[in-house]
Amino acid sequence: MAGIYPVLLCGGSGTRLWPVSRKSFPKQFVPLAGQGTLFQAAAGRMQGAPGVAAPVVITNSDFRFIVSEQLAAEGIRPGAIMIEPTARNTGPAILAAAVHLAATDPKALMLVMPTDHSIPDVDAFRVAVEAGVPRAAAGRIVTFGVRPDRPETGFGWIELKAAPEDGASQPVQRFVEKPVLEKAQAMLAEGRYLWNAGIFLMSAETLIAAFHEHAADLIKPVTEAVEGARVDLDFLRLAAEPWAEARDISVDFAVMEKAGNIDVVPLGAAWSDLGDWNSVWRENGGDRAGAKGTVTQGAVTAIDCEGSLLRSEVEGQHVVGIGLRDLVVVAMPDAVLVADRARAQDVKGAVAQLKARSVRQAEVFPRDHRPWGWFETLALADRFQVKRIVVKPGAALSLQSHIHRAEHWVVVSGTAQVTVGDEVKLLSENQSVYVPLGAVHRLANPGRVPVVLIEVQTGAYLGEDDIIRYEDIYARSDDPGTSR
Amino acid sequence: MAGIYPVLLCGGSGTRLWPVSRKSFPKQFVPLAGQGTLFQAAAGRMQGAPGVAAPVVITNSDFRFIVSEQLAAEGIRPGAIMIEPTARNTGPAILAAAVHLAATDPKALMLVMPTDHSIPDVDAFRVAVEAGVPRAAAGRIVTFGVRPDRPETGFGWIELKAAPEDGASQPVQRFVEKPVLEKAQAMLAEGRYLWNAGIFLMSAETLIAAFHEHAADLIKPVTEAVEGARVDLDFLRLAAEPWAEARDISVDFAVMEKAGNIDVVPLGAAWSDLGDWNSVWRENGGDRAGAKGTVTQGAVTAIDCEGSLLRSEVEGQHVVGIGLRDLVVVAMPDAVLVADRARAQDVKGAVAQLKARSVRQAEVFPRDHRPWGWFETLALADRFQVKRIVVKPGAALSLQSHIHRAEHWVVVSGTAQVTVGDEVKLLSENQSVYVPLGAVHRLANPGRVPVVLIEVQTGAYLGEDDIIRYEDIYARSDDPGTSR
Repeated sequence: MAGIYPVLLCGGSGTRLWPVSRKSFPKQFVPLAGQGTLFQAAAGRMQGAPGVAAPVVITNSDFRFIVSEQLAAEGIRPGAIMIEPTARNTGPAILAAAVHLAATDPKALMLVMPTDHSIPDVDAFRVAVEAGVPRAAAGRIVTFGVRPDRPETGFGWIELKAAPEDGASQPVQRFVEKPVLEKAQAMLAEGRYLWNAGIFLMSAETLIAAFHEHAADLIKPVTEAVEGARVDLDFLRLAAEPWAEARDISVDFAVMEKAGNIDVVPLGAAWSDLGDWNSVWRENGGDRAGAKGTVTQGAVTAIDCEGSLLRSEVEGQHVVGIGLRDLVVVAMPDAVLVADRARAQDVKGAVAQLKARSVRQAEVFPRDHRPWGWFETLALADRFQVKRIVVKPGAALSLQSHIHRAEHWVVVSGTAQVTVGDEVKLLSENQSVYVPLGAVHRLANPGRVPVVLIEVQTGAYLGEDDIIRYEDIYARSDDPGTSR
Repeated sequence: MAGIYPVLLCGGSGTRLWPVSRKSFPKQFVPLAGQGTLFQAAAGRMQGAPGVAAPVVITNSDFRFIVSEQLAAEGIRPGAIMIEPTARNTGPAILAAAVHLAATDPKALMLVMPTDHSIPDVDAFRVAVEAGVPRAAAGRIVTFGVRPDRPETGFGWIELKAAPEDGASQPVQRFVEKPVLEKAQAMLAEGRYLWNAGIFLMSAETLIAAFHEHAADLIKPVTEAVEGARVDLDFLRLAAEPWAEARDISVDFAVMEKAGNIDVVPLGAAWSDLGDWNSVWRENGGDRAGAKGTVTQGAVTAIDCEGSLLRSEVEGQHVVGIGLRDLVVVAMPDAVLVADRARAQDVKGAVAQLKARSVRQAEVFPRDHRPWGWFETLALADRFQVKRIVVKPGAALSLQSHIHRAEHWVVVSGTAQVTVGDEVKLLSENQSVYVPLGAVHRLANPGRVPVVLIEVQTGAYLGEDDIIRYEDIYARSDDPGTSR
């Protein structure tokens, strides 16, 4: 293989896996499958294969530090992390990656991958990609199809002329949108249909040409957004104004369902979109041999349960299920979902209801990731808040002050460097410092192990937006969306 | 009415309402029904009626401070709070109350009440008691029967000679143990049966005579335990050694099912034992007019649910139910129960399973009540623990020290008086103090509003039993069961 650039799409925030996946921390970044996250698995899928370049990541501002952190944890150096100023679906996102790559190499092959799917067999995936390379190099758009094993109504399907063969490409006849059950059953029986996995391989110039032909209005705003992009630390921020002009549209609607030069290669590997709790149940062996097993994760006691998924996400919370049939139970300390497994698709609508009622748990995750580490609220009351704060080795919070709150910091692990006013001192386990209201202060970790500290805030207003930032090594002073 | 002593039984710890009811804080002390607790309702049921004396409470050592706190909150001064050294069921407990009362007045009428049942209509209850008084004064044992409205197999029943009339007593024909469904249906149809509510009225000497006749072996150990009882603050601790000799037996088995001098008065009032989540669902209107409604409490979103009970017990935790049928969902941050409503009885067995596997949540409640207030763990890690501690006005923790941990205290509300070594100082909101490992220290609240403080403990061992107690206004230095 030569000149293949993995393009990783990770700006989305699926809510059908709520409460584990939330807008502030969506499923691609959550360790769902044991080791690592779906995003990390996708980023590493082509890593080290001959001729494969550093990946291009497309994400949004909120997730940028999670992206760089999760890549670093896997030892992957990205070619670029492109930041969408606003969500515009996959069409503009993929076109932006193409424009970016074409600037240096129009023949660059882009391997576009969603990062919230699971493909456990990396070797089989690479074999399929390799089979697609000659077609992509010859100016075709190559898509990858998954052999169906059930009449799934939640996916798009791809119609072929003849039954698919592993490693052999053939032209796509037609894309079929999410079908009704009878149609899905017919396609499954027919043997000439594959599931659309949303993975594409083509050269940057081929894709740009396809947009010119089928969605020409996107070319100008997206090109201007890429050309006007601004480098911000490790990130490439697309220009907000032209980007805002681009239509919100998926790549399937914009291009794929219209283009005539599409080939498909069967993906000879297990694949799952882990799109809802029902599929998590299935992928974890719930319906092995139709046995309607019960899948548990974490501290769970399931008594006489059948066909159910029971998950306790956090240490210290125990879930007991008694006599359950075909249910999904997902428990976190701040949110619990109990749903009929057949209604797994309706979780999305439920979260929309919560959001409409301003229920915080609809979107916000208890643990808040920042470039320097993370924090979580342990207790929140009228006039005080207690947080656990973890600062990574070498990291530092911004130099800041607050108008409405004072803070106590008690170090419980590691060694912190603390600045309060003009004084700078080191605090180790068991030591504490008081930051009076209005004092300019900074917390840093000069050591080699994480600093864990307990922060006790007191004051009449305790919102994250009570912050004046004087200096920040992560260049956040002009980024009102991110506090601390 | 004259000379009636309410005798409140509250030593038990039902687990069928787990996770809300746990061994460390059972259902009679939990606010289940809105205002107050079932224990408080029972304690207040006869309060202020003419001739009614201060209640006698029988409980165990673990609950003694909860009992005195909940009575104080209702402005009720108990006649005695008797502490059972070990659990021996209702037989010895009620006999102990009788022996205690008979020492001053053998003719004293005892109105024995379980404290974990619900009887909303106090006036109707008092009318029934009044109807029983002449019979009790005449040497009969009066029991109170509830008119059945369903073929309940979970209760004992009472057979009468004729259909019962409100306010009119008649002799009991027979006690019927928990019946099978067919028998329950027959009894319901027959109209000559009442449910046994476990409430009794008789003179102390009548009851003692009944024990002499039907369970004579209990007389000696129980009498010796009462005569050897030791006063400890507001409590009367029964002597442990003779008490341990008493058989573990219910008052029904020991006496009621054998005695020939029992009358029954129909209780013309709604009554529920709130014995399991199914009955909580029913009592909250779940099956009103057979409609199989869904009952929610707290932050709950129920979508297309039917015949279900969904409860979120704690602020900050949201429960979402989708498409549920006849389920019980009870969520707390540390424990979640999801059960088929028809299996509500099996919660008890599930908790026994958890206990056998040493799952902490089986028995221990997150919030720990102490004579001075309460505390709860906010975060627990390998080498540190964060607690919220609330100290009541005028209360004080013991003068103590720890061998394995140091503590930081940050006051977030109220004013605390803190002793560390020889130094005594006042801390108000926003101030903190460090208690080094080994330092003798005490926390007190000299003010008129509760003190709330955040405690951060650090050390290799953080168990509650790492405590050396030097002085304690609650006389706990010889009580190893209670730390702090």
